[in-house]
Amino acid sequence: MYRLHDFQQSGNSYKIRLLLTQLEIPFEAIPVNIIQGETKKSEFITKNPKGKVPVLEIQPGIFLAESGSILLYLAEGTKFLPSDSLEKAQVTEWLFFEQYSLSANLSRPRYFISILKQPEKVSHLIKHWQMLGYQALDVMENHLQNRSFFVGDRYTIADISLFAYTHVAEEGKFDLNKYPGIKAWIARVQSQPKHITIKD
Amino acid sequence: MYRLHDFQQSGNSYKIRLLLTQLEIPFEAIPVNIIQGETKKSEFITKNPKGKVPVLEIQPGIFLAESGSILLYLAEGTKFLPSDSLEKAQVTEWLFFEQYSLSANLSRPRYFISILKQPEKVSHLIKHWQMLGYQALDVMENHLQNRSFFVGDRYTIADISLFAYTHVAEEGKFDLNKYPGIKAWIARVQSQPKHITIKD
Repeated sequence: MYRLHDFQQSGNSYKIRLLLTQLEIPFEAIPVNIIQGETKKSEFITKNPKGKVPVLEIQPGIFLAESGSILLYLAEGTKFLPSDSLEKAQVTEWLFFEQYSLSANLSRPRYFISILKQPEKVSHLIKHWQMLGYQALDVMENHLQNRSFFVGDRYTIADISLFAYTHVAEEGKFDLNKYPGIKAWIARVQSQPKHITIKD
Repeated sequence: MYRLHDFQQSGNSYKIRLLLTQLEIPFEAIPVNIIQGETKKSEFITKNPKGKVPVLEIQPGIFLAESGSILLYLAEGTKFLPSDSLEKAQVTEWLFFEQYSLSANLSRPRYFISILKQPEKVSHLIKHWQMLGYQALDVMENHLQNRSFFVGDRYTIADISLFAYTHVAEEGKFDLNKYPGIKAWIARVQSQPKHITIKD
């Protein structure tokens, strides 16, 4: 059985829990406490030298890291990833956009404000993250103006990936009220079969 | 023929030029001047609403963005991307690591210091980028201690991706002298058949 080394509040970990659940793949979740520095300890570093969750142990001693890569690995050949090479490239494009442009800027304010509760540690960075985070949300809002989902008008891992940090953006003090397209899409994602919340 | 909308000094653009050249796929390069704000103009935004280079036009009007996604699209079925699903996931893992942990922190100092020549604009951010950038270089150095390349002991798009910003890290005031493994790997990448430099 897959073992998922994860941290419940991590959006990146949540993506994998959500996809595994929707794929009906059983897994054992092994909690790793980021706040207590467990991802930087040698026991964890042997699993992922990059020192980050999530890590999916697909066989004893075989570990995959980086949420985008794990999503692509698990979704291959399923309805959550198109088989057409162009549509697959479009899904993959959103996965990279999510990491570079969206979650890098949404997850860090959320972590320091709502999880660590030490926003003063990053007061010099918050404005920078907010500027870039709102730019990414603007791109998503425009894309959703005449679409229900991000690629091919159906729910894929592009949606799972983008949803993870967007639906909790307010925990990083982002205001989603000016994004009606994103808010409607969040509701559509939440209404998918076998949806679980980040707290489940 | 493919049309590549790119900016010569962009490491992300260079990755695509390098792979296309090594795949011997002819392409037309169409320069986009980031410094003059061309990626934010409506003519470019219709090609990539995310407002970034590179953009690969695979057919007239069909555009792919995000360097990691373009690399995966082009390398599929070639020697630059393993066909084994586990090795492919490991390559993809490095592509995501490169975007989130490496290039985000190496490319921005380089852009403001050596390309825009306005480091004062980001003086409050440089330390943050340097801390994270050195963490990423440490991970790469450790990985290369007993390996010639990043995955499967052969040259793949993982190497192309990681090489693009690492080999010009000093333009962002990163010191590579404490990374002998990385320096030896840079030389190995540069000695691959049909290698081109970022200035070619």
